[in-house]
Amino acid sequence: MKLITRIKEMQHFISEEKRSGKKVGFVPTMGYLHEGHLSLMKRAKKESDVIVVSIFVNPLQFGPNEDFDRYPRDLERDKQLALEAGADVLFFPDTKEMYPDEPVVTVSVNKRVDALCGESRVGHFDGVATVLTKLFHIVSPDYAYFGLKDAQQVAVVQGLVDDFNFPVKVIGCETKRESDGLAMSSRNVYLTEIERKEASHLSQSLLKAKNWLLDGDSGETEQKMIKYLEEHTSGFVEYSKILSYPELLPPSKKSKKLIIAVAVKFSKARLIDNIIIDNILTRQESGEETCSVH
Amino acid sequence: MKLITRIKEMQHFISEEKRSGKKVGFVPTMGYLHEGHLSLMKRAKKESDVIVVSIFVNPLQFGPNEDFDRYPRDLERDKQLALEAGADVLFFPDTKEMYPDEPVVTVSVNKRVDALCGESRVGHFDGVATVLTKLFHIVSPDYAYFGLKDAQQVAVVQGLVDDFNFPVKVIGCETKRESDGLAMSSRNVYLTEIERKEASHLSQSLLKAKNWLLDGDSGETEQKMIKYLEEHTSGFVEYSKILSYPELLPPSKKSKKLIIAVAVKFSKARLIDNIIIDNILTRQESGEETCSVH
Repeated sequence: MKLITRIKEMQHFISEEKRSGKKVGFVPTMGYLHEGHLSLMKRAKKESDVIVVSIFVNPLQFGPNEDFDRYPRDLERDKQLALEAGADVLFFPDTKEMYPDEPVVTVSVNKRVDALCGESRVGHFDGVATVLTKLFHIVSPDYAYFGLKDAQQVAVVQGLVDDFNFPVKVIGCETKRESDGLAMSSRNVYLTEIERKEASHLSQSLLKAKNWLLDGDSGETEQKMIKYLEEHTSGFVEYSKILSYPELLPPSKKSKKLIIAVAVKFSKARLIDNIIIDNILTRQESGEETCSVH
Repeated sequence: MKLITRIKEMQHFISEEKRSGKKVGFVPTMGYLHEGHLSLMKRAKKESDVIVVSIFVNPLQFGPNEDFDRYPRDLERDKQLALEAGADVLFFPDTKEMYPDEPVVTVSVNKRVDALCGESRVGHFDGVATVLTKLFHIVSPDYAYFGLKDAQQVAVVQGLVDDFNFPVKVIGCETKRESDGLAMSSRNVYLTEIERKEASHLSQSLLKAKNWLLDGDSGETEQKMIKYLEEHTSGFVEYSKILSYPELLPPSKKSKKLIIAVAVKFSKARLIDNIIIDNILTRQESGEETCSVH
């Protein structure tokens, strides 16, 4: 596995690989790799000739009161894990290499950010879109892999690629979970022992919501989810939402997919989880229409 | 010369050309081509294997009270001129092709836009940077050519390419001028006969300013330029400025280059012009320091 820290070296290496017709698969990460990241690398390995993994804790996507400084880091362990998962290149630039000066230009995300994490993490997705724009130009991927645990991120990245005509295919991959259903996340290490047990109720609340949605409307279901999470965890429920996906707007009959998403703040970790399902409101709302005929 | 209107076709054509090792030179324009544009194409012809010219009047870079609707257009004439200048591909998408929906993401320009045209044309450079981000992904140029008549645009594009790590070399080319010194521009057709004669004083004011700058400071020189333009034209002097280039900040001893720039509003045309020179304030300001010793 090649280790690269400089942008120019990364660009040069990739342009040589692409000249010989190779397809590049890219897994951008903030490091502290877990099974979720490794599953993206393994997926990339099946579809691409050269697998590039980046590790960069991007200051632009952290708010002033967020956990940039204490975000967990372990480069030596990450190197070993990426190597074992089949990465061909590990790109880990430092902050000065990525942002030598206060930037002249940044990307602004104007849609898909007024709900869920975008509502409380103002500017977060601008930072994500900006760093990915840079990374896509540095790594020139044919395929880029993202975990659907961060479904809003995948929606924003799809918008970025579509609107800016990036010649990149975005591949959202299913969330990897612990045996009790907890979505894997680098931030899970912040949980206390008790919180770790409670945290399985996030995924439980999503599965229950899917059933509640068959009998009630989305507003009712959101309220039931809050109640469930408040009863089963000590955390603060930041949101429990049902929206269209990937638009992240209030769902309507026309929405093809729905996302059911939650965010819960524990003492030192803010956890998120979601499931994306076919629009089951279609049936229900058509039912309502039939009723309203008489 | 190949005529292309669809993004996917353009991307496909270029990826085939690049696969065979060809270098791509790109001249993005808003059409209504003049000698200035043609000189960019001729320059590109010397350095690249495939010359792509785009024509797209980009709505995103026009303000609500600007001249988007009446911006001059003549596609048939442009086709002929581009062909004669040696273009290999003319890419002219329509607005729906470039912006099928309200965009999720746009580029925000945070520096180099508080002065000159950026001050009055709010959002203009965001629109320029957004459309160029798209066009760079559609055309994949190795070299992109811009006229230095729009020097602020070149400064912003250089910031865009540097900050976003685009694998593109930006080449700013000298302003082409009519025999009386008027900088060539698609908007010159808007001038009345009298205004057309007066308009040569824009370039005259720049040359005079360079001399005034040797004897006075930049503030004094700016005032003299306004006076000169007010005396010699019927237009409204929107700005006359001396700034560091490409930063577009108040000049200091450390500035390597200076830009002397003017914008004058005539009845139906707003004209701009500039010259970029080595920092002659260095000498002068060191002189001042010597004086202040006693």
